[in-house]
Amino acid sequence: MTYPNEKLSEEKVFKDPVHRYIHVRDRVIWELIGTAEFQRLRRIRQLGTTYLTFHGAEHSRFSHSLGVYEIVRRIIDDGFQGRPEWNEDERLLCLCAALLHDLGHGPFSHSFEKVFHLDHEEFTQAIIVGDTEVNQVLTKVGKDFPKKVAEVIAKTYENKLVVSLISSQIDADRMDYLQRDAYYTGVSYGHFDMERILRVMRPREDQAVIKHSGMHAVEDYIMSRYQMYWQVYFHPVTRSAEVILTKILHRAKELHHHYYEFKQEPTHFYSIFEEEISLKEYLKLDESVILFYFQAWEEEEDEILSDLCRRFMNRQLFKYIEFNPNSQMKMWMELTTLFKKAGINPDYYLVVDSSSDLPYDFYRPGEEEERLPIHLLMPNNEVRELSRQSEIVEAISGKKRTDHKLYFPQDLIDQLSSKRKVKDQIINLLKGDQS
Amino acid sequence: MTYPNEKLSEEKVFKDPVHRYIHVRDRVIWELIGTAEFQRLRRIRQLGTTYLTFHGAEHSRFSHSLGVYEIVRRIIDDGFQGRPEWNEDERLLCLCAALLHDLGHGPFSHSFEKVFHLDHEEFTQAIIVGDTEVNQVLTKVGKDFPKKVAEVIAKTYENKLVVSLISSQIDADRMDYLQRDAYYTGVSYGHFDMERILRVMRPREDQAVIKHSGMHAVEDYIMSRYQMYWQVYFHPVTRSAEVILTKILHRAKELHHHYYEFKQEPTHFYSIFEEEISLKEYLKLDESVILFYFQAWEEEEDEILSDLCRRFMNRQLFKYIEFNPNSQMKMWMELTTLFKKAGINPDYYLVVDSSSDLPYDFYRPGEEEERLPIHLLMPNNEVRELSRQSEIVEAISGKKRTDHKLYFPQDLIDQLSSKRKVKDQIINLLKGDQS
Amino acid sequence: MTYPNEKLSEEKVFKDPVHRYIHVRDRVIWELIGTAEFQRLRRIRQLGTTYLTFHGAEHSRFSHSLGVYEIVRRIIDDGFQGRPEWNEDERLLCLCAALLHDLGHGPFSHSFEKVFHLDHEEFTQAIIVGDTEVNQVLTKVGKDFPKKVAEVIAKTYENKLVVSLISSQIDADRMDYLQRDAYYTGVSYGHFDMERILRVMRPREDQAVIKHSGMHAVEDYIMSRYQMYWQVYFHPVTRSAEVILTKILHRAKELHHHYYEFKQEPTHFYSIFEEEISLKEYLKLDESVILFYFQAWEEEEDEILSDLCRRFMNRQLFKYIEFNPNSQMKMWMELTTLFKKAGINPDYYLVVDSSSDLPYDFYRPGEEEERLPIHLLMPNNEVRELSRQSEIVEAISGKKRTDHKLYFPQDLIDQLSSKRKVKDQIINLLKGDQS
Amino acid sequence: MTYPNEKLSEEKVFKDPVHRYIHVRDRVIWELIGTAEFQRLRRIRQLGTTYLTFHGAEHSRFSHSLGVYEIVRRIIDDGFQGRPEWNEDERLLCLCAALLHDLGHGPFSHSFEKVFHLDHEEFTQAIIVGDTEVNQVLTKVGKDFPKKVAEVIAKTYENKLVVSLISSQIDADRMDYLQRDAYYTGVSYGHFDMERILRVMRPREDQAVIKHSGMHAVEDYIMSRYQMYWQVYFHPVTRSAEVILTKILHRAKELHHHYYEFKQEPTHFYSIFEEEISLKEYLKLDESVILFYFQAWEEEEDEILSDLCRRFMNRQLFKYIEFNPNSQMKMWMELTTLFKKAGINPDYYLVVDSSSDLPYDFYRPGEEEERLPIHLLMPNNEVRELSRQSEIVEAISGKKRTDHKLYFPQDLIDQLSSKRKVKDQIINLLKGDQS
Repeated sequence: MTYPNEKLSEEKVFKDPVHRYIHVRDRVIWELIGTAEFQRLRRIRQLGTTYLTFHGAEHSRFSHSLGVYEIVRRIIDDGFQGRPEWNEDERLLCLCAALLHDLGHGPFSHSFEKVFHLDHEEFTQAIIVGDTEVNQVLTKVGKDFPKKVAEVIAKTYENKLVVSLISSQIDADRMDYLQRDAYYTGVSYGHFDMERILRVMRPREDQAVIKHSGMHAVEDYIMSRYQMYWQVYFHPVTRSAEVILTKILHRAKELHHHYYEFKQEPTHFYSIFEEEISLKEYLKLDESVILFYFQAWEEEEDEILSDLCRRFMNRQLFKYIEFNPNSQMKMWMELTTLFKKAGINPDYYLVVDSSSDLPYDFYRPGEEEERLPIHLLMPNNEVRELSRQSEIVEAISGKKRTDHKLYFPQDLIDQLSSKRKVKDQIINLLKGDQS
Repeated sequence: MTYPNEKLSEEKVFKDPVHRYIHVRDRVIWELIGTAEFQRLRRIRQLGTTYLTFHGAEHSRFSHSLGVYEIVRRIIDDGFQGRPEWNEDERLLCLCAALLHDLGHGPFSHSFEKVFHLDHEEFTQAIIVGDTEVNQVLTKVGKDFPKKVAEVIAKTYENKLVVSLISSQIDADRMDYLQRDAYYTGVSYGHFDMERILRVMRPREDQAVIKHSGMHAVEDYIMSRYQMYWQVYFHPVTRSAEVILTKILHRAKELHHHYYEFKQEPTHFYSIFEEEISLKEYLKLDESVILFYFQAWEEEEDEILSDLCRRFMNRQLFKYIEFNPNSQMKMWMELTTLFKKAGINPDYYLVVDSSSDLPYDFYRPGEEEERLPIHLLMPNNEVRELSRQSEIVEAISGKKRTDHKLYFPQDLIDQLSSKRKVKDQIINLLKGDQS
Repeated sequence: MTYPNEKLSEEKVFKDPVHRYIHVRDRVIWELIGTAEFQRLRRIRQLGTTYLTFHGAEHSRFSHSLGVYEIVRRIIDDGFQGRPEWNEDERLLCLCAALLHDLGHGPFSHSFEKVFHLDHEEFTQAIIVGDTEVNQVLTKVGKDFPKKVAEVIAKTYENKLVVSLISSQIDADRMDYLQRDAYYTGVSYGHFDMERILRVMRPREDQAVIKHSGMHAVEDYIMSRYQMYWQVYFHPVTRSAEVILTKILHRAKELHHHYYEFKQEPTHFYSIFEEEISLKEYLKLDESVILFYFQAWEEEEDEILSDLCRRFMNRQLFKYIEFNPNSQMKMWMELTTLFKKAGINPDYYLVVDSSSDLPYDFYRPGEEEERLPIHLLMPNNEVRELSRQSEIVEAISGKKRTDHKLYFPQDLIDQLSSKRKVKDQIINLLKGDQS
Repeated sequence: MTYPNEKLSEEKVFKDPVHRYIHVRDRVIWELIGTAEFQRLRRIRQLGTTYLTFHGAEHSRFSHSLGVYEIVRRIIDDGFQGRPEWNEDERLLCLCAALLHDLGHGPFSHSFEKVFHLDHEEFTQAIIVGDTEVNQVLTKVGKDFPKKVAEVIAKTYENKLVVSLISSQIDADRMDYLQRDAYYTGVSYGHFDMERILRVMRPREDQAVIKHSGMHAVEDYIMSRYQMYWQVYFHPVTRSAEVILTKILHRAKELHHHYYEFKQEPTHFYSIFEEEISLKEYLKLDESVILFYFQAWEEEEDEILSDLCRRFMNRQLFKYIEFNPNSQMKMWMELTTLFKKAGINPDYYLVVDSSSDLPYDFYRPGEEEERLPIHLLMPNNEVRELSRQSEIVEAISGKKRTDHKLYFPQDLIDQLSSKRKVKDQIINLLKGDQS
């Protein structure tokens, strides 16, 4: 038996709270899980700072990655296998891409990417094709196999059916994270009948489609996603933690560029501050390393850095008010001036943060991010875009919702005792819009 | 309203996957949760290295502590309140002790305590009575309040009913961790009808007792505990990770005492190596710090330290065989000799590890660790020790089960190609007893 | 203690799979549960013929009624109690109305009411104010108490807050049945965070309102309801069983009016056939009685009656096609003619059945059935109708969806061997529209 | 494709709350489910009178039978298929036997069998080999196929591996009912890791064995069974209902033999009273029929019959005390005398009822009911009886527990106002032993 088809002598199973068991029979998958790069995902939380809002959300990208793999495995082995539209030769490629799709995520990716202009998808591809243990395993399958896996993740692979399993509006990635994040946070959203969806998925030339009879399960899934975004992912307390995290990174970078002398030298950060980080250095960044520095920096002399780090470590977050960028710019500018008067640096302590989500969208060619719409397989074998069939989905389709909030440190304001007048002005401005 | 009775203007709730919601109405509790020392528990996993076996077990002592608090709150508010045997003045004391009972845990406590002769219970008390934010909050309740809380946790508090809520064979601590650990690992053990147990708990002078009608729920709880010990807590793969962790700590300590020059200086470890750690230093130790060092030490020149750290970080654990200390000492000694011949240091690479559990025990005065037995409240109001009433519990009562395993690095042995004969002898010895 | 306030010496609990436990402390409630009229609800399934589609849906109105009681009890005891807008004197009234709201349901109510022009709500009131055990218990509370309970159920009671707890678009009735029906059918819809909704319900003068922060939980509840209607309640297979059931009742009534001599005399049906049924006779009708007759009637000489009964008992249901009443009336008339030619009575064997649902509606004065809309309590204490705040709800608000299907016995058509031409014509007509 | 191997063009699924989905691909199975005899199981509750204690337990033997089928299907298709010890030709036989194993159950079997000396297993076999729709379907597989199915259920089939799947101490029957009964009653016992057990089941020549690594899951299953017996199946309130039911049947039979003139003639019972019931008559007995008569008999002139029927229909059950047959025979005899004096017929109103269970037993040749013990497959491929390996199981193995209770109508005794002295004596005797 050649390596690509090599099976373990006995199936390995992982106990998983979401999918009960995760089944591994292919040697390639087993070896990929054992690589240093994949094990590193244990040290990166799936939901970044969300654990500061939902204390149960302490699960890692390691768990999620296994889950996505398992869903793709079930789609193929229980559903696609044997159907004429499905080419079994693509099976292993799908499984590897599913398992590795998040490999390039760093700690608290969202903030890191924003501040340091990184892109986790690029790192995912770099790990897969670079000098890594993952690459060694994949290369055993075939010389061009790592490249193929990278292409699937980059959505450039020619067989779009394969791509759609992990990158579409109803892919294994989303199906796992909605359920997993709901399980670990404990919220009741995020549940939908995945088993039914898997049963009605059918392979077509360029994507996986859903049999018409499963439409309601898909509606339910889309509503789950919508609720999870606004209830969990965009929770204002989580965003407050993200704001602080982002400002810590900004401050450290700025201090570095101004030759500030750190008590705890930011060794692991040098290259990232210079925006020329190597793959090897990147792989050393995990949440332990970040938290190690943040703890140490609580004792830096720079007051902004130490204060922000203390806030992050001890969850003393910013408060917030609703903010309307159209009508309240003047208020924001006034606050900026008042903050300066009060000796609170508004660059770090008065922050507008925005979230927006599009629950579902049909295909709009030329849009910044093209989204693969969901297609139903009708009884007459015709393929039909979901929002043309489902009233519920039609109703929310293409409706982007955006939410802005203004974050600030209530405690610092409360302590402005010697600047009574400034304090009152700030409080009045904030209260005027507080709902 | 005095501080001890002060209520929040609006109840705070935490979404919790195990208890659905955790309810906080007392200002003291709210402020304790916000202290740096309590937030630190977010950075210490409840189950140490278990996540290397059950990938879902990434939950922290923070979550568990909230859970124990919530259970005690329900016992008191829904069950004890208003009964003549219950003194409502003890309520806040119970809640604080429940919330803070694990406060002194360090990272990977089990191994740390063994190697460095620490005791997390001593640290818990030190944090409560020492110069900490927790102490400041508690002192607002009353000058001697911190001491009382510490006494409850130390089991020396005079009102044994209060002590029994968090330290007995059926306390809030166990009821939370069994359910929580089952939830996060995903195993099906660990479930029992806690709601029923809470409904039938009654306060008595010196302990909480269980109404006779709830006996079967208690039997089920004891069996859950038994299964969790052997299926989860003592899982041989987890123990393998513990073995490696212990050996890393030993090695680092030994190197330190031999003036080895670390590339990554073990600054945070100095005082612990010398066994004279201060409270302030102790509080800086969390899992991020430990993992930061382990990652760095992967590149130390000392081969044992770097190898063990790589194993721990990348989950390349030791294999094991069953080991009978009575009949197999000779085999072990032979292996020790062979390992030395093979150039594998048996002090670090050939380790016997033992686990033992006593599922339930009645009272045995004078035993090393006295265990408070569970008592049933019979229909005639008499109090009766559980194992005298339940056949199931009687059957397993006092039966200690011990399990020994011998751990070794299969991969290193497999690589002994130039020492063919030694290798074969090792393999034969290990196989001979492998079951 | 007067009877209305009399508590049981020890709380009684019912183990309930949906709410875990149902708690009864009031003697009135306990005695109501023990009445013959309430126990009769055990013999009437909550979902009528749905068990023929979802085999798990065998639960009775007894279980559901306990559930509605428990939800109202929690709303009041955990949420309303002590708030200025709430009058604790109304508590017992609410609990009784909740428990008894379905008391007048007969077996397979939907079909019975349609065929015999009955109204279960009238019977509910008749039982409450009539010569029954339930009335005796209620009268012990106060002479006019039964009348009040009946008024609450009839929605004519003056305190609309009380009415809204069991009759509004987010009442205890709906919250119980959605969850319970989902539990017993096993579908994954029907779940929403009731605990959260209960936590944010607030009493207002004329209805219970929902705090703004709970809006998303309410959205989720409305989507659950929508899915349950189309996935469970209007399932075409269930409707097929309803069609047959209705036709059995029609046939038996017609035979009775034509002096047909039944082998099994329909003694229990006489007065209902004449549409002058007494309360006493009505209370004898339960599903056992109906099924007893249906089984016996399988052996009647009238072929239509015996065939339909056999179909119902042995689940040999009608098949169906989508039917558009606007464009397909001609097809239907042709089929009617062909069925007659084929010797299949179209009055009983060619049936159009329609379902329609309105997922949510705001207030439309003067509509046939006025619906109490859901109101949110905004941060500024203003009350706001849900669809004005929620985009999701706004999108589906007032959108009635209707679905028509044409039912027919495929097996009888398949057996038309001697009428080849007619058979082919029928098959072609049905196929032409079959999707 | 021959009929035995004929597959449905599309797999049929049943939504099942316990197993999520039940999958049917074989035409034989699909047709068996559609037979009148199998559909009849919808009208027979799985747990008889248990719904009077646990209101949720309204599920039928129909649901359970589908569940047993699904478990056997999974054992074979996911576990046995392809292993050398397994003969795939036996697959369909196993599936049919699993589906049909309870086919002969009548309404409230336990009481009916006791009073009328029936045996549901004989009826199961009679239905399978007799003139029935089930037999017609089975015969299409092969002429001797019905006989084989009957043999498997009778445990006389030569291949004991096949027999063990549905009749052993860890068979599909038990695994389904424990989980299903727990689900519908809502109790927290009854859960165990079936998925794990299925994964470790292996075919051996004469039985299915369990891989050693699954031992703890089996221990958990045995404890679940133990708890379900004492918490659910032998619940004293359920037994009270059984006592009344049994006495109704006794009374009706006695009246019949004494030529009593029933208002509602017991037509369906004649042959069963004479103990010469035909298969056709037996198949007409379902719970609807029984409840129809019980309702009618509430109005018989015979006071005992009407009182007992009223009790059963309206859940006015007997109370009970613990009873020790060794030490309390004298008390019972005294009560018998006193009851007679009081005018309460002790034959119907003073009843001792006993329950006993043996949680697990190893093999004891020659015992009345031989039990197939559970065997573990050890790492060395040896087969070992469970209680020799598991301490927990060893502790409870072979320990039969018996429980006796004395049932009586408290309400009738309370009403004995004119017989003050007799009343007091009765009350004292009953109280003296009440615990």
